[in-house]
Amino acid sequence: MSTIKDRFVKHIQLLQTTICEALEHVDGEASFITDHWQRPGGGGGVTRVIADGKVFEKGGVNIAVVNGPLSAQAAQQLKVQGQSFFAAGLSLVIHPCSPKVPTVHANWRYFELYDEKGNTTDAWFGGGTDLTPYYLVESDVVHFHQTQKKCCDGFDGGLYAAFKHQCDNYFSNHHRGEERRGVGGIFFDHCRAEAGRDMGFWFDFVTANGNSFLEAYLPIVRKHVDESFTPKEKYWQEIRRGRYVEFNLLHDRGTLFGIRTQGRTESILMSLPPTVRFDYDFQAEAGSEEEKLLKVLREPQEWIA
Amino acid sequence: MSTIKDRFVKHIQLLQTTICEALEHVDGEASFITDHWQRPGGGGGVTRVIADGKVFEKGGVNIAVVNGPLSAQAAQQLKVQGQSFFAAGLSLVIHPCSPKVPTVHANWRYFELYDEKGNTTDAWFGGGTDLTPYYLVESDVVHFHQTQKKCCDGFDGGLYAAFKHQCDNYFSNHHRGEERRGVGGIFFDHCRAEAGRDMGFWFDFVTANGNSFLEAYLPIVRKHVDESFTPKEKYWQEIRRGRYVEFNLLHDRGTLFGIRTQGRTESILMSLPPTVRFDYDFQAEAGSEEEKLLKVLREPQEWIA
Repeated sequence: MSTIKDRFVKHIQLLQTTICEALEHVDGEASFITDHWQRPGGGGGVTRVIADGKVFEKGGVNIAVVNGPLSAQAAQQLKVQGQSFFAAGLSLVIHPCSPKVPTVHANWRYFELYDEKGNTTDAWFGGGTDLTPYYLVESDVVHFHQTQKKCCDGFDGGLYAAFKHQCDNYFSNHHRGEERRGVGGIFFDHCRAEAGRDMGFWFDFVTANGNSFLEAYLPIVRKHVDESFTPKEKYWQEIRRGRYVEFNLLHDRGTLFGIRTQGRTESILMSLPPTVRFDYDFQAEAGSEEEKLLKVLREPQEWIA
Repeated sequence: MSTIKDRFVKHIQLLQTTICEALEHVDGEASFITDHWQRPGGGGGVTRVIADGKVFEKGGVNIAVVNGPLSAQAAQQLKVQGQSFFAAGLSLVIHPCSPKVPTVHANWRYFELYDEKGNTTDAWFGGGTDLTPYYLVESDVVHFHQTQKKCCDGFDGGLYAAFKHQCDNYFSNHHRGEERRGVGGIFFDHCRAEAGRDMGFWFDFVTANGNSFLEAYLPIVRKHVDESFTPKEKYWQEIRRGRYVEFNLLHDRGTLFGIRTQGRTESILMSLPPTVRFDYDFQAEAGSEEEKLLKVLREPQEWIA
């Protein structure tokens, strides 16, 4: 019988293909390019990037399956101990052309740690998916959260509420008075075997969450893709993309872990938006649609009654 | 007789006005706006920003004069000890519209630390100025470095070489194989009273370096401001501005110190360029002018024989 490690690697390989094909189909023009890379210390990855599409301005759907000795720096940053490690994950960020179509991010990952004899001493899953709209359409946000909740509820009635709040807390620009990057979704980490939930439970949950991604995101894309937008709305999207850059480079643990542990820079930074603006002290007009979005970024809502 | 603290505050106030007036004169269209701000813990600053000019697309020339209890976090980050602190500095970043005109950054700062009785226990200066061109014009770089060297040599024949190398080491995107942000200049920190160099020595040096800024930068602006440029050259400028963002948000100690100690976000992040591109795996063409620049960013040169 195959291990969780092997099954998870097969899952992310298949999921990468499934998601890329579905996004290409929606885009209708652009295709993903494929870069295979090797990690000097062990393992490697497959980076798939789409650019300058009809629908998607820039997007990456990457997998990495890496292993090797655990550096002191990596151990300190992960707050774990071990002689060597295995990590596998899929990370995606999709930046649409239109400010009417939200950006989306998702990540699902699995870690194992080993002692000097090669015995597994720790293992955990992490991940989640979150939505970053430029204009607030409440029914979109409800649909996105409802899909997350449906997935979570299939496993445990308490998961959605816990992971939804962790998501709101995590994707926050602390240096901007806790302004959130987007309208959230779910975020979970350090999901280890515990009473009533073995690693098989978490494997099933994480893979189910990955498999629900297209159902959560694509209907929102299809709904807005043909809407027109003004240069002013594009400008606002680029200002908000600036906040996305600030979060990813200042606060995102995954990005900083990758950078500090000499990960493959181009694969890590594929998450950065294609065109971005940084204006001094940009202010949304009072009563505008832009301000309406800011309000829910500053005070996260419960989207599902 | 006034203290070094008082004299340095007067110096940066005057220098801010002098530099803003000179840049407005060169721009000919845009003016600096002025934002006064107070720091809740003590002190405040004056942020001056120019935007959408004929020559300058975005620029900030900021001063801050702050004081108060030294938090454990700030002490740890500065690697110092003390009960309370005083800090004053001028920071500027100028992003021209044209890719033919280099971006410039400068900072001059003074710190004092006090024990619980208010006695000064430590004091030091830091700062420097560095140039970030998008196209390499060697005579510009030589002029910029020559101005720094002339200033340094007026104080000590060894300063320029030491501070030039510190600059090359500091403004480096470590996650891109030590690709430098620009062609350097000088960078110095922890300049304390020591044998033969009292604080008056460093005060004179730091103020002289500030006063030489316009002489270092303006001739380069004037030389290139009327040159035409292509959309492809503007594109390259925006790609390089992406690297500027990466350095400032991932590595710059001043930015990270400000963000982590709850500084005024808009004043700290005025350094970010106005429009920016992040392409996946952008490659300069072999033999191109873009590649010529990259070469000296990857292998810093000695510009003065």
